[in-house]
Amino acid sequence: MHVINCVVCKFKSDFLFLSTDAMSPKITVELLRQLRQAMKNSKYITEPIQAYIIPSGDAHQSEYIAPCDCRREFICGFNGSAGTAIVTEQHAALWTDGRYFLQASQQMDNNWTLMKMGLKETPSQEDWLVSILPENSKVGVDPWIIAADQWKSMSKALSSAGHSLVAVQDNLIDTIWEDRPAPPSTKLITLGLKYTGLTWQDKVTALRGKMAERKISWFVVTALDEIAWLFNLRGSDIEYNPVFFAYAIIGISNIKLFVDSKRLLDPAVQEHLELDSPSKPELTIQCFPYESVYTELQAVCAALAPKEKMWICDKASCALTQVIPKSHRSAIPYTPLCLAKAVKNPTEIQAMKMAHIKDAVALCELFAWLEKEIPKGMVTEISVADKAEELRSQQRDFVGLSFPTISSVGPNGAIIHYRPLPETNRTLSLNEVYLIDSGAQYLDGTTDVTRTVHFGTPTDYEKECFTYVLKGHIAVSAAVFPNGTKGHLLDSFARAALWDSGLDYLHGTGHGVGCFLNVHEGPCGISYKTFADEPLEAGMIVSDEPGYYEDGSFGIRIENVVLVIPAKTKYNYRNRGSLTFEPLTLVPIQLKMINTDLLTQKERDWVNDYHKTCRETIGAELERQGRKAALDWLIRETQPIV
Amino acid sequence: MHVINCVVCKFKSDFLFLSTDAMSPKITVELLRQLRQAMKNSKYITEPIQAYIIPSGDAHQSEYIAPCDCRREFICGFNGSAGTAIVTEQHAALWTDGRYFLQASQQMDNNWTLMKMGLKETPSQEDWLVSILPENSKVGVDPWIIAADQWKSMSKALSSAGHSLVAVQDNLIDTIWEDRPAPPSTKLITLGLKYTGLTWQDKVTALRGKMAERKISWFVVTALDEIAWLFNLRGSDIEYNPVFFAYAIIGISNIKLFVDSKRLLDPAVQEHLELDSPSKPELTIQCFPYESVYTELQAVCAALAPKEKMWICDKASCALTQVIPKSHRSAIPYTPLCLAKAVKNPTEIQAMKMAHIKDAVALCELFAWLEKEIPKGMVTEISVADKAEELRSQQRDFVGLSFPTISSVGPNGAIIHYRPLPETNRTLSLNEVYLIDSGAQYLDGTTDVTRTVHFGTPTDYEKECFTYVLKGHIAVSAAVFPNGTKGHLLDSFARAALWDSGLDYLHGTGHGVGCFLNVHEGPCGISYKTFADEPLEAGMIVSDEPGYYEDGSFGIRIENVVLVIPAKTKYNYRNRGSLTFEPLTLVPIQLKMINTDLLTQKERDWVNDYHKTCRETIGAELERQGRKAALDWLIRETQPIV
Repeated sequence: MHVINCVVCKFKSDFLFLSTDAMSPKITVELLRQLRQAMKNSKYITEPIQAYIIPSGDAHQSEYIAPCDCRREFICGFNGSAGTAIVTEQHAALWTDGRYFLQASQQMDNNWTLMKMGLKETPSQEDWLVSILPENSKVGVDPWIIAADQWKSMSKALSSAGHSLVAVQDNLIDTIWEDRPAPPSTKLITLGLKYTGLTWQDKVTALRGKMAERKISWFVVTALDEIAWLFNLRGSDIEYNPVFFAYAIIGISNIKLFVDSKRLLDPAVQEHLELDSPSKPELTIQCFPYESVYTELQAVCAALAPKEKMWICDKASCALTQVIPKSHRSAIPYTPLCLAKAVKNPTEIQAMKMAHIKDAVALCELFAWLEKEIPKGMVTEISVADKAEELRSQQRDFVGLSFPTISSVGPNGAIIHYRPLPETNRTLSLNEVYLIDSGAQYLDGTTDVTRTVHFGTPTDYEKECFTYVLKGHIAVSAAVFPNGTKGHLLDSFARAALWDSGLDYLHGTGHGVGCFLNVHEGPCGISYKTFADEPLEAGMIVSDEPGYYEDGSFGIRIENVVLVIPAKTKYNYRNRGSLTFEPLTLVPIQLKMINTDLLTQKERDWVNDYHKTCRETIGAELERQGRKAALDWLIRETQPIV
Repeated sequence: MHVINCVVCKFKSDFLFLSTDAMSPKITVELLRQLRQAMKNSKYITEPIQAYIIPSGDAHQSEYIAPCDCRREFICGFNGSAGTAIVTEQHAALWTDGRYFLQASQQMDNNWTLMKMGLKETPSQEDWLVSILPENSKVGVDPWIIAADQWKSMSKALSSAGHSLVAVQDNLIDTIWEDRPAPPSTKLITLGLKYTGLTWQDKVTALRGKMAERKISWFVVTALDEIAWLFNLRGSDIEYNPVFFAYAIIGISNIKLFVDSKRLLDPAVQEHLELDSPSKPELTIQCFPYESVYTELQAVCAALAPKEKMWICDKASCALTQVIPKSHRSAIPYTPLCLAKAVKNPTEIQAMKMAHIKDAVALCELFAWLEKEIPKGMVTEISVADKAEELRSQQRDFVGLSFPTISSVGPNGAIIHYRPLPETNRTLSLNEVYLIDSGAQYLDGTTDVTRTVHFGTPTDYEKECFTYVLKGHIAVSAAVFPNGTKGHLLDSFARAALWDSGLDYLHGTGHGVGCFLNVHEGPCGISYKTFADEPLEAGMIVSDEPGYYEDGSFGIRIENVVLVIPAKTKYNYRNRGSLTFEPLTLVPIQLKMINTDLLTQKERDWVNDYHKTCRETIGAELERQGRKAALDWLIRETQPIV
């Protein structure tokens, strides 16, 4: 699954986009009237506010969000993944980026002004507010859904113009959203050592070691995937992401877990968390209702000794962050759990490998099926996506998809964040390039793979572009680099062949991938953008997915999930050690799309070695599962290039 | 000339290092006693301060500094390029980085504690101060020699621990430095259109255009090279850097220049600046004494209308920055002059090319001479440096060196910031690798070139390493990349061949180069560090200088100065256009050092094309200058590889 500017492009909200009458604007006159009343209503606020900001996120700053958190969509109708709405007494405006200009303009009625981010003439939210607000205005925002670092910069800009940013405790959208869905509270899954390699007790102990190293006595955990990973629990509160709504506060001798108490009635969960019989006093979990995190954090802070320090991520909500007095607060750009989660242990690596083998089986089966079915003229983008899901669901420990499948034919492939809708759905044919970017959640791991194929005869130009993308893919996958190298230093390797011919792609090359967790995770990646980019380490897992997109014509992307492994080199400068990648994804790359004349001998060897591994590893599993057609397809598709 | 972490390694202060008894520590008991008295002396400060910070820089945050500004060296004895001293009532400590641990420990007496930056156990200056200061302490610093951004972070750290950072107007080092050299005030050189391509009036007008675009009414210019470039003037106040001490305040209809008034008595300067008869009122330069910039800036600020904004670089001194009220201040990470100066105009490009041709003539002559002289056994690192300077000085419009020559034999070459000293001086022989990194200032341009050669038979390993470095050099030089690409995205190209074999080098790959200005300039460069890295544009000039250093054995670096030029590509994605580099440095790369088996055909072609250009361009000039021996050498050294 590809990434633009390190932010995913296909989103939970795109999924809703499919299921509603997407292209007629939402009528918002009445909603805006109600919201503006709420902005003056003393029931919610002590003094009227002149503007109200509605960000995209949830209280955990999740990338994917639950339906109950789609407040920005509710108020303006626009359901893209990125965007911030601001409503004043006179105006209503929405900021979004180039991917969504068309969609936003179609989904919003004329009460809304579209602010096209990235265009020179478009003011920033801060500048716009300053330009239209009367003197000494108050701008409100729900402190739970704005990150502390965003609050800080917005507050600073407003203050310096004589206004102020104020925290409105009641979310004003919720006060007018009559049929707002209830927050989800799905059943929790407990993961045993077989999948996790470490008990949650081991993880808490290791975390406390990191805290002790830095003289930190408490750590407020707010990211949902960090909590799921730490406690070896999974949920399904957010589609595609096996997480559940919770907070945790970890002390040197305390563990406070904040989660809907109904979920803890499950005996398996009780036993897993040792709620009745903790093995050690310092590993006793105190459970609290999800909502009480605020007051409990206040209580913890009130009891802090003068020099005690508390960690919280600077992307955590402003509400929780501000509970911690500044003198005790140590705001960090990413947490030790984020890093610990990113470096997979041997059990997780083995489990991820197994998940990728099963996933490859499903995809080989899919491609064999496609070859047979396409000539009949009935296979569409949507039906392939459905078929892929069906085949994956036949594999052991399948849980669900890891993101909405991108299934795109011809010109649709050039729309980087495309998802097939009934009104855009194209039929696969022998004449157009087909791109499928898909992945699944299994109990043992998360997958994400893109293949670009042609079922007839690709043009020379399509092959040429495909080959440049492949050269970039190989350049990253086969790169050898010193320990301590950050992913952004590898990004250009993926582009060099395209650049040489004057081509490029406008998204990053790779993102971290969770282990039966979010398909996008930090703190590492491969992108020309350098923020939140921690050095690559053996055990990290990232995607390698360069592409090329010819508007109105075709899209190409070749994506493997790859594992960072130690590399053997001829020399070893300053004993630093070297790293390289091992592909976990083992699905053949279509030879028909390659112009082999453009490959170097090293690149040809790479393709042949890769296909040999696919044939051996996936072939054995196909054989075991008795999937003959797919096995035949695999053997044919993995013939060596000569 | 190479760069570590974007900071130069060889420095004015290294030059002093050569001329003094470098290795015996400076006795500082009495100086520290005097300084501690000054820290309590009400003549200088209203209340005693408990610590005093002595940074490295001058009032313009220059990379190279004049002798009168070497205050940190004066107080502690350490004269490396980077370091900050802090003196408290009880302690004296110096922070410097790994390049200087040995040198600092040798130059400082035992009153000083060496703080080894980069080691885990070393506290930051802030943490150290907080750990040793009594409650409510005051820490003093000269606000003129601390940059505004540094002041901000230090002040924040101290405040949050209950202390305060205070500006001490009299520099306390100056109060105890009896024989402090006078600030230099060298003769100014005026540069005509033949060298600059634009009059200073054109430049001021263009700058005002940029200011108007951003609604900026004033701009405080503090960087010496920006002032020199803007007014088409040069000086020699700082060795190697043709700049002069000055400030400028540019308004939409005002030009205020602050410079020692004696310098303006020169009729050529008067005429150049049109002091008597300005062509237009808005191009009238008002001249003020250098020292009056503070009061004049206060006067300008006092007259500002409410919404007027003033630009100042966030690296400008805290003293000047704080004169501007926050509401009027727009602090920018680099200035429009910095960018305008970096993008050379056609006249400057032509002039730089001419300077590089002359420089190559001198180097060809040098290498031909070395081949003849080395077998006699009398040529040393220092004598080569002297010979190189002599040969360069024979070229038209030679002004001086652009930095101290790095001339290093065998193991000395592995010391990245090496400069030959009498006690380290090695004799060149037929058995060791020789590295020379040198450059000059000519009226028409600045040069910087490194060649690594062997006068006997290099070992296979030396050739292997040299060839990897060459592959990296070529990978950058021949890279094609889209308009808008930042230099840091090219850095890994220079390392890929070394990385493949487990090798690397611990410095950046390139820095901006001025045109008869500083050999290091912003805002672009090629480094794995990404700060202050503006996109490359056609007309920018940077160095391309990968290396490899085998401790105790040899050093390799291959450096050309290269010009960013438009590239012709097969396709042109989104009409962005592509860029590549054209080498300005035209000095043969020693074929004897290359293992041609390790080169691809493309790399061989690059070497042959490069050598063909050297032969044609430099050959013609050698012929014109009648330098027969060098011409013969050039022709032999530029034979094509087959």
